[in-house]
Amino acid sequence: MLIVMRDHATSEEIDHVVALLKEAGAEAHLSRGEVKTIIGVIGDREVMYSLELEGLPGVEQVIRVLKPYKLVSRDFQPEDTVVRVGSAAIGGPSFAVIAGPCSVESEEQVLATARAVKAAGATMLRGGAFKPRTSPYAFQGLGVEGLRLLREAADEVGLPFVTEVLDVRDAETVAEYADMLQVGARNMQNFMMLDELGKLRKPILLKRGLSATIEEVLSAAEYVLKGGNRDVVICERGIRTFETYTRNTLDLAAVAALKTLTHLPVIADPSHGTGRRDLVRPMCRAALAAGADGVMVEVHVDPEHARCDGPQSLTPEMFAGLMNDLRPFAALEGRRIGSEG
Amino acid sequence: MLIVMRDHATSEEIDHVVALLKEAGAEAHLSRGEVKTIIGVIGDREVMYSLELEGLPGVEQVIRVLKPYKLVSRDFQPEDTVVRVGSAAIGGPSFAVIAGPCSVESEEQVLATARAVKAAGATMLRGGAFKPRTSPYAFQGLGVEGLRLLREAADEVGLPFVTEVLDVRDAETVAEYADMLQVGARNMQNFMMLDELGKLRKPILLKRGLSATIEEVLSAAEYVLKGGNRDVVICERGIRTFETYTRNTLDLAAVAALKTLTHLPVIADPSHGTGRRDLVRPMCRAALAAGADGVMVEVHVDPEHARCDGPQSLTPEMFAGLMNDLRPFAALEGRRIGSEG
Amino acid sequence: MLIVMRDHATSEEIDHVVALLKEAGAEAHLSRGEVKTIIGVIGDREVMYSLELEGLPGVEQVIRVLKPYKLVSRDFQPEDTVVRVGSAAIGGPSFAVIAGPCSVESEEQVLATARAVKAAGATMLRGGAFKPRTSPYAFQGLGVEGLRLLREAADEVGLPFVTEVLDVRDAETVAEYADMLQVGARNMQNFMMLDELGKLRKPILLKRGLSATIEEVLSAAEYVLKGGNRDVVICERGIRTFETYTRNTLDLAAVAALKTLTHLPVIADPSHGTGRRDLVRPMCRAALAAGADGVMVEVHVDPEHARCDGPQSLTPEMFAGLMNDLRPFAALEGRRIGSEG
Amino acid sequence: MLIVMRDHATSEEIDHVVALLKEAGAEAHLSRGEVKTIIGVIGDREVMYSLELEGLPGVEQVIRVLKPYKLVSRDFQPEDTVVRVGSAAIGGPSFAVIAGPCSVESEEQVLATARAVKAAGATMLRGGAFKPRTSPYAFQGLGVEGLRLLREAADEVGLPFVTEVLDVRDAETVAEYADMLQVGARNMQNFMMLDELGKLRKPILLKRGLSATIEEVLSAAEYVLKGGNRDVVICERGIRTFETYTRNTLDLAAVAALKTLTHLPVIADPSHGTGRRDLVRPMCRAALAAGADGVMVEVHVDPEHARCDGPQSLTPEMFAGLMNDLRPFAALEGRRIGSEG
Repeated sequence: MLIVMRDHATSEEIDHVVALLKEAGAEAHLSRGEVKTIIGVIGDREVMYSLELEGLPGVEQVIRVLKPYKLVSRDFQPEDTVVRVGSAAIGGPSFAVIAGPCSVESEEQVLATARAVKAAGATMLRGGAFKPRTSPYAFQGLGVEGLRLLREAADEVGLPFVTEVLDVRDAETVAEYADMLQVGARNMQNFMMLDELGKLRKPILLKRGLSATIEEVLSAAEYVLKGGNRDVVICERGIRTFETYTRNTLDLAAVAALKTLTHLPVIADPSHGTGRRDLVRPMCRAALAAGADGVMVEVHVDPEHARCDGPQSLTPEMFAGLMNDLRPFAALEGRRIGSEG
Repeated sequence: MLIVMRDHATSEEIDHVVALLKEAGAEAHLSRGEVKTIIGVIGDREVMYSLELEGLPGVEQVIRVLKPYKLVSRDFQPEDTVVRVGSAAIGGPSFAVIAGPCSVESEEQVLATARAVKAAGATMLRGGAFKPRTSPYAFQGLGVEGLRLLREAADEVGLPFVTEVLDVRDAETVAEYADMLQVGARNMQNFMMLDELGKLRKPILLKRGLSATIEEVLSAAEYVLKGGNRDVVICERGIRTFETYTRNTLDLAAVAALKTLTHLPVIADPSHGTGRRDLVRPMCRAALAAGADGVMVEVHVDPEHARCDGPQSLTPEMFAGLMNDLRPFAALEGRRIGSEG
Repeated sequence: MLIVMRDHATSEEIDHVVALLKEAGAEAHLSRGEVKTIIGVIGDREVMYSLELEGLPGVEQVIRVLKPYKLVSRDFQPEDTVVRVGSAAIGGPSFAVIAGPCSVESEEQVLATARAVKAAGATMLRGGAFKPRTSPYAFQGLGVEGLRLLREAADEVGLPFVTEVLDVRDAETVAEYADMLQVGARNMQNFMMLDELGKLRKPILLKRGLSATIEEVLSAAEYVLKGGNRDVVICERGIRTFETYTRNTLDLAAVAALKTLTHLPVIADPSHGTGRRDLVRPMCRAALAAGADGVMVEVHVDPEHARCDGPQSLTPEMFAGLMNDLRPFAALEGRRIGSEG
Repeated sequence: MLIVMRDHATSEEIDHVVALLKEAGAEAHLSRGEVKTIIGVIGDREVMYSLELEGLPGVEQVIRVLKPYKLVSRDFQPEDTVVRVGSAAIGGPSFAVIAGPCSVESEEQVLATARAVKAAGATMLRGGAFKPRTSPYAFQGLGVEGLRLLREAADEVGLPFVTEVLDVRDAETVAEYADMLQVGARNMQNFMMLDELGKLRKPILLKRGLSATIEEVLSAAEYVLKGGNRDVVICERGIRTFETYTRNTLDLAAVAALKTLTHLPVIADPSHGTGRRDLVRPMCRAALAAGADGVMVEVHVDPEHARCDGPQSLTPEMFAGLMNDLRPFAALEGRRIGSEG
């Protein structure tokens, strides 16, 4: 930690800061310039993040050099983590393609979609049983019945599936049915849920919050790892900006940056990231090229009758076209999609 | 709902949209221009928000004219709601001042702060027992022991208190101790928690999310009212923008706008909204002038040793100065702070 | 400047940075921790802002402690600057109210509006002769004829006026007619124009850019002062965020912050800041309460026929009501509006 | 244009709006629902964008269906525009790689860099002679001498070059030296400059502003085309968001979206878009995969001594590696880089 004192801070102010640091068990190193004094602080992460020095007399700026996370960092573990989800792997040479409907609506719908995405080469199934909706008047999902239908369809086609945990109280129930548990963007900083998921032995798909910084998504992942669960995949799904043409702004540079900062796998969700069917294909390709370990794509057998996110869902035909498009790109990267390579 | 068709959309495309609308139980009215056809749709809110027409062939844009909320709207209830919290009232002629430490750290700290803010004229006490922290290595609050200390201090000085519910599983426990339950910014779209709080008979303080639109915060409040709890106060606490000098950007125009859109009381939190002690005073005054029904202010007897948000906490002396500053402003507005008027 | 080296940076890397600093004429002070070395750098502003060290081997972060501006800073001049514009003063005990139409449309319109705002107590007239418009198909202003009409109306009612310079080539022409020259938000970083205005002997109204940080608007003002023109007023007019209910997000905390950072007067423009007539009044009051030295308000004798910004323009009656509303607030602050006090 | 009236708007209010529309020469079509009346308006673009109806009594919302641009639209010209710049082409089957230093610093520097990028396969040279800098104390470029050095280097290696016009008064001078003129992000809405460039017979590289929407960048391009200059290339270079790890947020979905909306070529600038050398390579690949017609990359023979943007500049070696990396990707897309295919 660095503490930049104001121009001409007094000796009393400087001594006072140093005394507080000592009291907290940290070491202080002073650099006195003619107008500025800077205090370098050595101590452990916990102390650094519990000290609040910004408002002290004479203090201009406090700069934290230690990051608020550790276990997720490449400094801590240089080699890539590969997360296994049933028959699928995320990270390493595999490029994961997770596909399925926004929400489970009926047995026919989920089964038909599961068959279609499996046939086209998807490596995992996705689908929502509990849906977070801005308006209380919108469709909220089928709940546990949805989980059952997803399990059935997944088993039928032989793909593992991921679904969102919306309520911390449902975590164990969801874990009974699903192969992987998703933390949605709105819950990325639901720290109690992160703690709870840290105790489970199921892989976690952690979506970046709409206004979460790269540092914050890594800190959220740290909660899960700190709890004992090392199988976390981070998903970039668009951040909220002033642009309204797209539903969100898919931040692919964050994908590339995350790959340098963490050993965890990182995937992208162009369906939510753009909110527009016509942009899903180019952005899946771009995600692959940016270094993502996979993509998540909404597919619906009948998007016109989808009860949520119809405008961004691909038809099975469009999805098959996307898969054909991605394979040579993946090959160029030395990656394979599923077991096809 | 309005559906704008693409230039020269075909009759088939138009008929197809109309058929889907009828199937869903909505009425369609066509306006055919030379190049553009527009379809006006009449139906109830539930239907409008469950239809997903954006991706249909020939559809350019879907514009929802019905808002995603109803009960919170001034159209539904023109007169101001006044929320009673123990001895305090929020809304109407009272201007609420809710003050206290970011987090409860010890019996002495919370009691001393409670006495100080009571003496200066605060109308309610605040304090965190469960703290949402970006880093898992930062202080997370005293938990239930914190609730007990808050209750004790509140009773001792004779003020009601508000505290955050961080975990939906703790809602009832928190409700046993606290006079008002706070939904933090990170949980504003934790819909399961909103549902749960809708069932309680305790007033709710709902903080706007860091990247939530005005429409979204109203929709979040709608969840609570729809559940049966009408006592909701909305709190603007700063949104996330590109500006880094302030911790967040306090959006006072949202306060003024919310006052026109909803009958619920609206307050502002300049401590979190700016993150800087020196900006709390001017922004409290500005909030009052913009039409807020109250402010929420962090006060700490010893900000230098605060375990969270020290840089934005006022000392008791600064808080007393703020109160003296606010009273004539409030009087000018025909409002009183507590029982002093 | 502080240079934070990566963990375990090598001696060669550190020496290399130090050598480059010496080469540039700066002094380097090392603090070596066990894992981190930090280099404190002393040198002048020019050198600090021309060195680019971020990409050097072993360098993790470069933190500039010296601000990119000097002349505009309160450190450089602690006492408030009062800018005189003809009969009006901006800054100090006066609270400026600058009012008038978005654009000059006709002799009758500008004259009628000028008379109305003067009668209500405005201290300055505003009006656009050259209009920046997003679409090339929108009305672009009357040009020099507009300047002439503004001069005429201003003289007739006895108020100074401010108008925007849209093209650096017009700066001198505009200066012949106007009492104060406005730099619009879109030109805030048109550095060539700032240089040119620095050479003029006319006061400048500098509007904050839509995505400009507080530091950037101060740096833009520094360009004008560095050129020799000390009469600059900064205007907060809303920044661009994700919120769409309001046209922009009026950042009043920036007003309060600017007042602590600079000696220059700071005003707010709630008309552009909110884009909604119904929010102009509360936000003018809030600006005053936040410490602004004035407000800028769009007024049109016939907003329905306004050729630009009708939705945010007040009628003369609404403006008179606003003035009546502001006076007691200003009095409470010990400020007067025009010569009425 | 659609006008949504408030619930239960009166007949007088509706008639009044209709009368104003007729007066302006537009046609009004009414759809009366039980609670809502909607007015469809037919008229030309100029009229639609000069009418300001948002503030009229009874009007809730005005929705413009006609876009504020025409000539740049794919509706106007479905086939791709290919812009020729000397020996290079941007758009069509070619994938353009524009490389060179942020700023021209010396004859040796620009010549060495030009040789290096040519050798590696760049199709165009870039370099800044006039530099926009936030701080007036930073290096501002060599001016006309820089233009001369760029011309010399470009001729020597046989590549066309692009450079920024910072001041509208310099446009003709820059056009004498350069093969393509760049409008920087800060000048994207400098409408007077856009008008001036519309009169020139040189291709224009238009960079998206830091907070410009997709619609606004297209409207800015429309200014140039409306002036008579059809040779415009749009460049995505990152928008300003809350994320601070990257300098800006490179919005590749905007590239994909622009390709569907306009026939003009669209390129990306990962150097400015990310501000980090280590992210340039993945983001160049991602831009190609997203459908960009080219990339712009900062290269410096000696980034450590670069006078601007050192941290984001590639060395010649890194640039050669990037080119080798891009070629097979481009081939997969059926595109060639320069004449190598």
